[in-house]
Amino acid sequence: MIDLSDLKAVKEALRAQRIETPSWAFGNSGTRFKVFAQRGVPRSPEEKIADAATVHRFTGIAPSVALHIPWDRVDDYGALTRYAKDLGVEIGAINTNVFQDDDYKLGSVTNPDPGIRRKATDHLLEAISIMDATGSRDLKLWFSDGLNYPGQDDLRDRQDRLAEALRETYDRLGDHQRILLEYKLFEPAFYATDVPDWGTSYAHCVELGPKATVCIDTGHHAPGTNIEFIVAFLLRQGKLGAFDFNSRFYADDDLMAGAADPFQLFRIMYEIVRAGALDPSYGINFMLDQCHNIEAKIPAVIRSVLNVQEATAKALLVDRDALRAAQRAGDVLGANAVLMDAFNTDVRPLLAELRTEDGLDPDPVAAYHRSGYQQRIEAERADGQQAGWGA
Amino acid sequence: MIDLSDLKAVKEALRAQRIETPSWAFGNSGTRFKVFAQRGVPRSPEEKIADAATVHRFTGIAPSVALHIPWDRVDDYGALTRYAKDLGVEIGAINTNVFQDDDYKLGSVTNPDPGIRRKATDHLLEAISIMDATGSRDLKLWFSDGLNYPGQDDLRDRQDRLAEALRETYDRLGDHQRILLEYKLFEPAFYATDVPDWGTSYAHCVELGPKATVCIDTGHHAPGTNIEFIVAFLLRQGKLGAFDFNSRFYADDDLMAGAADPFQLFRIMYEIVRAGALDPSYGINFMLDQCHNIEAKIPAVIRSVLNVQEATAKALLVDRDALRAAQRAGDVLGANAVLMDAFNTDVRPLLAELRTEDGLDPDPVAAYHRSGYQQRIEAERADGQQAGWGA
Amino acid sequence: MIDLSDLKAVKEALRAQRIETPSWAFGNSGTRFKVFAQRGVPRSPEEKIADAATVHRFTGIAPSVALHIPWDRVDDYGALTRYAKDLGVEIGAINTNVFQDDDYKLGSVTNPDPGIRRKATDHLLEAISIMDATGSRDLKLWFSDGLNYPGQDDLRDRQDRLAEALRETYDRLGDHQRILLEYKLFEPAFYATDVPDWGTSYAHCVELGPKATVCIDTGHHAPGTNIEFIVAFLLRQGKLGAFDFNSRFYADDDLMAGAADPFQLFRIMYEIVRAGALDPSYGINFMLDQCHNIEAKIPAVIRSVLNVQEATAKALLVDRDALRAAQRAGDVLGANAVLMDAFNTDVRPLLAELRTEDGLDPDPVAAYHRSGYQQRIEAERADGQQAGWGA
Amino acid sequence: MIDLSDLKAVKEALRAQRIETPSWAFGNSGTRFKVFAQRGVPRSPEEKIADAATVHRFTGIAPSVALHIPWDRVDDYGALTRYAKDLGVEIGAINTNVFQDDDYKLGSVTNPDPGIRRKATDHLLEAISIMDATGSRDLKLWFSDGLNYPGQDDLRDRQDRLAEALRETYDRLGDHQRILLEYKLFEPAFYATDVPDWGTSYAHCVELGPKATVCIDTGHHAPGTNIEFIVAFLLRQGKLGAFDFNSRFYADDDLMAGAADPFQLFRIMYEIVRAGALDPSYGINFMLDQCHNIEAKIPAVIRSVLNVQEATAKALLVDRDALRAAQRAGDVLGANAVLMDAFNTDVRPLLAELRTEDGLDPDPVAAYHRSGYQQRIEAERADGQQAGWGA
Repeated sequence: MIDLSDLKAVKEALRAQRIETPSWAFGNSGTRFKVFAQRGVPRSPEEKIADAATVHRFTGIAPSVALHIPWDRVDDYGALTRYAKDLGVEIGAINTNVFQDDDYKLGSVTNPDPGIRRKATDHLLEAISIMDATGSRDLKLWFSDGLNYPGQDDLRDRQDRLAEALRETYDRLGDHQRILLEYKLFEPAFYATDVPDWGTSYAHCVELGPKATVCIDTGHHAPGTNIEFIVAFLLRQGKLGAFDFNSRFYADDDLMAGAADPFQLFRIMYEIVRAGALDPSYGINFMLDQCHNIEAKIPAVIRSVLNVQEATAKALLVDRDALRAAQRAGDVLGANAVLMDAFNTDVRPLLAELRTEDGLDPDPVAAYHRSGYQQRIEAERADGQQAGWGA
Repeated sequence: MIDLSDLKAVKEALRAQRIETPSWAFGNSGTRFKVFAQRGVPRSPEEKIADAATVHRFTGIAPSVALHIPWDRVDDYGALTRYAKDLGVEIGAINTNVFQDDDYKLGSVTNPDPGIRRKATDHLLEAISIMDATGSRDLKLWFSDGLNYPGQDDLRDRQDRLAEALRETYDRLGDHQRILLEYKLFEPAFYATDVPDWGTSYAHCVELGPKATVCIDTGHHAPGTNIEFIVAFLLRQGKLGAFDFNSRFYADDDLMAGAADPFQLFRIMYEIVRAGALDPSYGINFMLDQCHNIEAKIPAVIRSVLNVQEATAKALLVDRDALRAAQRAGDVLGANAVLMDAFNTDVRPLLAELRTEDGLDPDPVAAYHRSGYQQRIEAERADGQQAGWGA
Repeated sequence: MIDLSDLKAVKEALRAQRIETPSWAFGNSGTRFKVFAQRGVPRSPEEKIADAATVHRFTGIAPSVALHIPWDRVDDYGALTRYAKDLGVEIGAINTNVFQDDDYKLGSVTNPDPGIRRKATDHLLEAISIMDATGSRDLKLWFSDGLNYPGQDDLRDRQDRLAEALRETYDRLGDHQRILLEYKLFEPAFYATDVPDWGTSYAHCVELGPKATVCIDTGHHAPGTNIEFIVAFLLRQGKLGAFDFNSRFYADDDLMAGAADPFQLFRIMYEIVRAGALDPSYGINFMLDQCHNIEAKIPAVIRSVLNVQEATAKALLVDRDALRAAQRAGDVLGANAVLMDAFNTDVRPLLAELRTEDGLDPDPVAAYHRSGYQQRIEAERADGQQAGWGA
Repeated sequence: MIDLSDLKAVKEALRAQRIETPSWAFGNSGTRFKVFAQRGVPRSPEEKIADAATVHRFTGIAPSVALHIPWDRVDDYGALTRYAKDLGVEIGAINTNVFQDDDYKLGSVTNPDPGIRRKATDHLLEAISIMDATGSRDLKLWFSDGLNYPGQDDLRDRQDRLAEALRETYDRLGDHQRILLEYKLFEPAFYATDVPDWGTSYAHCVELGPKATVCIDTGHHAPGTNIEFIVAFLLRQGKLGAFDFNSRFYADDDLMAGAADPFQLFRIMYEIVRAGALDPSYGINFMLDQCHNIEAKIPAVIRSVLNVQEATAKALLVDRDALRAAQRAGDVLGANAVLMDAFNTDVRPLLAELRTEDGLDPDPVAAYHRSGYQQRIEAERADGQQAGWGA
């Protein structure tokens, strides 16, 4: 089993880890069948940021929060940025939304109507202006564009339109800004999506240039897809820009990261560690993208952050010398055993110790429940319009 | 190829075919991301029925419409039934809805809270009362009940609760009434659903008794599932009660029947024909259950009815003597060729002829577009609250 | 976290656990592309049994070995049984093989040719005679029967033929014998299999009677299938007879149990523990069914046994009172956390302690490697015809 | 419906179509469970070529045959090429095989052992030498390389090794030669394959240069993958080099093309037609890659060629002006209807007419059966060693 005697390097790596939370995880969400409202849900971008700051306060590794435009639209993004900073967090990625306007029924940047494409691209450019104001580095692009029926539109023409919009957006990026291009197999388009897989995203990013990178949402793949392979491959190509972490059993379920297949999350984080890509200086944005439809939202985000952290700790514990030796020797069982040894290790005591050393409560979920924050927001936010996916 | 010289029996079978349309297909629908409203959408159960009657007027084989409670709740179901009859259609299956009340966040009839289970079961009993008033035979039960996370509730306890609610409902059925128990692999519950597959539905139906049968929704299966096998098996067991036809490429996409895999629809209808189960007297309710999120709704329902009809016509054209002979001889290619010969036949001229003989327009979609109905409803229904999935 | 202070009951449960190993796991196996031979592979049923006994010697919980007829055909099954007993193991389930004779190209018990059906059923009856000689309780039936092409044969006729063969076989069973009816979604038949899912197996078993039960092979499901649901459901119905444990990432990969998704294996074992079905007296046969195509075979079987044991230990550590309380309270996160707490616990120290108490080496894999057994069989079995899947 | 009055252009396009048959489809094949031998199966490369020439004689559009090395290894490839030419066919793609030598248990060009990598790469270079002799343009590379267990080897190191072998192979290509790099999701490796998807193949091909292109095997995708999207995308990128056509219901079933989902095959061929890529001058090699495990082999290949031809004819019948108009107008149902109109057309009379005009029998399968060829080869090839997948 793992030698736990010298864990200093592991702890340092864990201390440097950064996970970005999504503002929308704190708002109401649901399925096409029903959105179940919860008590204490934020009514404004500021309240979402306050919740994100709370997650950071208890976990210590979630110091930024992604915004979603227009859900988080405000008049003064500079003020919002300062508000966040005062609470101890930064504004992270800016997420665009070109799927909730009636005009986008048949697509946004790939719509057959050039006027609608113009409108959609203008929204992307607006998002970059917001980034200028917030100091954000990352423009996250997810397009719901696609087809429900064969023949509905021309698959190839849509790629031309997509490339054109991406190019215009790319050219608008500032020096320290970049595009994260997300892909998704299906939903809300059912027959074809215009960026269905990592290959499509990758090919566009290569053509765009160095400031365009792929974003892997862990829930956006076909059954049987080996996600850690994609991670390893994109790292090798220098084109992995970000993760949207979440869990899925079947489709894009957007459950808590690590909830459905903790072994998969560990394998993903191992590829990150193996590539030296965990440190923020490497440039990967490790984001959550989740919907807490039936469970309490803030504890669910805390739990998700901890799940990623635990998977990371296990990945850091892999005895890489032993692994490499077994791999080189063709020792299938031996190599697998080295990996499993780390996965089977209970890292919770180590992480509790780390937190204590850093002045955090060793059990962030319990600490949150004891803190009274939940009771307070349920009281303070009893009135008004709760935030959700509606524009 | 198929001998088209003596098609009298085929035409008679096609004349007897009945497809039930769903009231909710005429209302607005969408995904969790967006519901795109359409012009001319009904604002009341009566207007949905009028649209269903329009579909029947042009197709000639859609003489009943399923209701969904509470979406189609009215004060006087007798009056609604007469209204429908005056328009030439009957009220078909009554669909229950125990997934849109806030109480049902953690389940309805399988909820850990007995009070909520009581409320849910009462709704099922209420639906039977509505059936008494409408003269409906079929109570369709679909439960969104399930779990998003492992451990969230006890899988087996929930089966006990489900069985209890089903028993009470079953015992309330009148002599000529029956339960159609639908199953679904996932959504809106993501980790486990309480009736995930045909086996679960079948086992409960067998225990309930002869008035409980399985409803196959063609979009509710795991990838790779052979649906026509399930059809054939349930027919053999005498437990196939109904279909919810629709198409899917990935999940429960609810696209037009026959749009994603017309060959599959043909294979399903072949098993029906082979079992002599096409005729209404056999007792199978051939329903559509679809969402026309981006396409015009009434033409989409007409198209779907025609797709089922075309698949049926092809199934009726299978040379069953030749097929049986090839099967018995172990002639793999020969047997497959007999089936494919029917599938490859263009049955549209035959169906056009059939319609002309029966006083229908040979091209129902074109006839609808020429009829002015769409323009009229867009004008008449410009105001008011459009119907949708909201309660 | 789990209170490890009073683990006596957990240890007793673990001591009673029994896992059955398959004789064929010790022989050569592969894919359609290539069978890679390994050194030291058995050349006879006796040598396979010796390997199985070795696995038991190091793990302490694998005291029986399943045979596969005709791969393990011998002249004197009584002698083989005594041979096994002398080595400390018993003969377990008898597996039938009606897929490797040229006659079975188009099926065995469902073949359109009655003569071939007769031959196949006779093989099943012969297997019961072998059970009489070995004292085996379980007749495992897996049929490769199915279709590659639509129309190739009649789906429903094949069910009639299947039922007939099963009935004749069932009626031949002795008082203490039973049928384990396995299901499989696909392979080697690609379009349809005659027992594709648990529902089909269950329906046949119910009709056969109490001595027919379902066998769950964990690799035989469609993507996205919730296996623990099936476990829980069949336990409730009293129809779960056995497991074939193995791992799969995509199809029926037959990898080591617990290697692909250890969390899933834990959830399955939790349903067993929750139902009180772990003890051998309950009657479930926990078998492995694996192919060690590229890894060393005996260590792979040991590893698989340990993986099931570790999953079981974690399942036994679930705080069921706390779980039930959280479930009843509708505390989604709390209930999930109780389950995850057990899964995240490192049970290897506990199991090492258990083994030491019972006179076993705390690390069975290491002990095997130190034992010299592998070197010995590689030397002793250098000549002759290695066992594999060939008849 | 389609206007069939001016079909001259359609017929010309169909006359120019070329489909390449695989030599191994005429030999025995099977699953890991059993290879069922058939009567009349070739015993040599020459006899396979004779069968391929027979397929061409009856279909008129299959004038080349792909070889597989070492299955089709001969001493004199020049003589083999002349032999083929005398029979009316050409030698097509050369397929490499680096998966059946014991050395390749843990991989070929990605093996951790540099000596084995050298051996594997040498085989690829040898295949180019064979191409020099046969005049073949296409080197088809499929690697079974991959992992069965997490940790077994380093995912990223394997990419480096793959890139190195590809580079050396690429540099050896003659001016008119090129690489077709195939991808496959799984099998025979179960956890990870080294070229799992089109994105991986594409990225390597881009780095290699213009003589490296992607080969799409229609059976090598995850469930739910939209293959025609990949076709359209690769055509846009100029990187689609070839198809391996076959059908699958679940995994890589290698059934007859068009047998499982004829609508999908039509959609694929529509993208080809839409891009003007059907003509041989465009450079795409339309190959079959199939296994006729239980059905008669030559008729199955004829049937597959006809299925591709029928799908192509339907694709050519799409009214592209009407389609484009409906697409541009956002008429979802209208655009879909244009596509479906072509799909629903029975093109068999048209193809029969085409064949008659060209001096072929209008029904190639029936003509084959009448020809006596099957009886002759069954008599002539009664002795000797039948060809199969064994080296």
